[in-house]
Amino acid sequence: MAAMGTNILAIAGGVGGAKLALGLSRVLAPSELTVVVNTGDDETFHGLHVSPDLDTVMYALAGMTNPDTGWGIRGDTFRTLEALGRLGAETWFRLGDADLATHVRRTELLRAGRSLSEVTRELTAHLGIAHAVVPMSDERVRTVALTDDGELAFQEYFVRRGCEPRITGVRFDGAETARPSPAFAEALESSDAIVFCPSNPIVSIGPVLAVPGVREAIERFGGPRIAVSPIVGGKALRGPAAKMMAELGDEVSCAGVARRYAGVCDALVIDTVDAAEAPAIEALGVRALVTSTVMETDDDKDALARDVVGFVEGWRHGRGAIHRALPRTRASRRG
Amino acid sequence: MAAMGTNILAIAGGVGGAKLALGLSRVLAPSELTVVVNTGDDETFHGLHVSPDLDTVMYALAGMTNPDTGWGIRGDTFRTLEALGRLGAETWFRLGDADLATHVRRTELLRAGRSLSEVTRELTAHLGIAHAVVPMSDERVRTVALTDDGELAFQEYFVRRGCEPRITGVRFDGAETARPSPAFAEALESSDAIVFCPSNPIVSIGPVLAVPGVREAIERFGGPRIAVSPIVGGKALRGPAAKMMAELGDEVSCAGVARRYAGVCDALVIDTVDAAEAPAIEALGVRALVTSTVMETDDDKDALARDVVGFVEGWRHGRGAIHRALPRTRASRRG
Repeated sequence: MAAMGTNILAIAGGVGGAKLALGLSRVLAPSELTVVVNTGDDETFHGLHVSPDLDTVMYALAGMTNPDTGWGIRGDTFRTLEALGRLGAETWFRLGDADLATHVRRTELLRAGRSLSEVTRELTAHLGIAHAVVPMSDERVRTVALTDDGELAFQEYFVRRGCEPRITGVRFDGAETARPSPAFAEALESSDAIVFCPSNPIVSIGPVLAVPGVREAIERFGGPRIAVSPIVGGKALRGPAAKMMAELGDEVSCAGVARRYAGVCDALVIDTVDAAEAPAIEALGVRALVTSTVMETDDDKDALARDVVGFVEGWRHGRGAIHRALPRTRASRRG
Repeated sequence: MAAMGTNILAIAGGVGGAKLALGLSRVLAPSELTVVVNTGDDETFHGLHVSPDLDTVMYALAGMTNPDTGWGIRGDTFRTLEALGRLGAETWFRLGDADLATHVRRTELLRAGRSLSEVTRELTAHLGIAHAVVPMSDERVRTVALTDDGELAFQEYFVRRGCEPRITGVRFDGAETARPSPAFAEALESSDAIVFCPSNPIVSIGPVLAVPGVREAIERFGGPRIAVSPIVGGKALRGPAAKMMAELGDEVSCAGVARRYAGVCDALVIDTVDAAEAPAIEALGVRALVTSTVMETDDDKDALARDVVGFVEGWRHGRGAIHRALPRTRASRRG
């Protein structure tokens, strides 16, 4: 990894965010990157504190991710979960055996009085992760989906119901009394740039922005604030972002994403297939930065991370440099 | 199984006790048997409530026991434990993946305010166990080994240190304020006979007798009280009973076991190899009942259970019948 001398605060949700976070961790030195992760998805299963997005980011940075799913641990088995099912527990939330160790250990340390930040630091250290992965808050925030089938806890909506109910809104219970985690608050003050990873703006980035003081800090942030669009070609690369945006009346497009990030984002990184949207995005006062954003391989992740860091560097040395850059196309990158 | 019309309260520790408990469960109808299990061994590992003896008895009655060890679950794997080790947790207490589900579920239900009795009833029901398996107490009792290397929590002494330190005594922390579990108290009143399974008299049966009111209830118990000696041929069939008895100054023999059970036991079932000890045992005022007590196969367990139930039946219909019974020898049983 080449030290760039630029400190980046990356804000991520689950699978999509974890991909760019991994790329950034390979491009930036540990001192140059703080990955702040959504914890609105956190849920208690079997009495254990599960932090799905934190785990997805941790496993990605530790090189442990199940490549078939983008979450969970490669080669994991489900013996404990099967046995829990035989004991009458519900097993729709798939927790692998090795994965379960994370939740058991986290729960034990939390019950011993450690904060989620401290616990996450301990877990990431044992997994050999040198970069800072931090929860958005040490206080509990619960994302609730308001749907045509009533209110659903996020994992109930997302996993058990497969995002099938139509949403009418989301609510972040507990957000009003939460505080940014210490490392997040510090990164908001000291970073050179903020990067919104290509995560669901409503339920991955939304909870982070709902923590009191965060939106305000990002609004007044001095450096560039760059989001990577999770919408490519009018669709979400994965997850329910497109469906949710449509149900909430957003335009399902990069411009729709830019509108979501109004006030907290200077530039939106969009895929080359969406280059024609650039004028509409710029009309919103948001710079459109065009490159290949689809991350299938680790090389894709590194390349997008390098592009993002390059955008940040160019921004810091004069805005003009960025927009003139010839878009990197998918074909040329792979050639 | 043949209903005998005799209600037996069996008191058991771990592996040895579980073998006879399984046999009794195959010989007696569910309404005829209550197995009360030591919980002085219970320990918290990884924030989870582990009840090793309850689990050993449950897995035995559910037909799940690992035949190589006598405890744990057949074919279990250790993925979660290995992952816990990678996260910095101590892993000397071997918890398998399927086994772990029991502890996770128990802990969840206990934290939800259920008693250990209620939780055990739910776990056994899901495992298809028709007979009552109940903890000695719903309050926490902790067996502490007093050793020449200081005080050691029981599992620390038993598993981590392999019973290597010399003991000078044992203590049952919390026993003074514990109460017999409701089903135990009920069985002490309503059973026709009490059977001490071939468990360690010091650290498996000892904690049960230390629960206030239990020793007194057994002392004044109206029916026969029969113990099966865990010492055969001067050795413990398994576990540290012989070593512990020797260190505490007991004679390591069936007579030594009879002395341990002074006041709470009318008859001691001893193996044919120890038949010569019968006079010494009877000199203590304890009847010696001779049969083959070594349980290797399930048939052995059933046979010993039938013998024990037969002793009880004989006792209830006139004591003389028992002692005149020709000892069943190992050879004849297997022939």
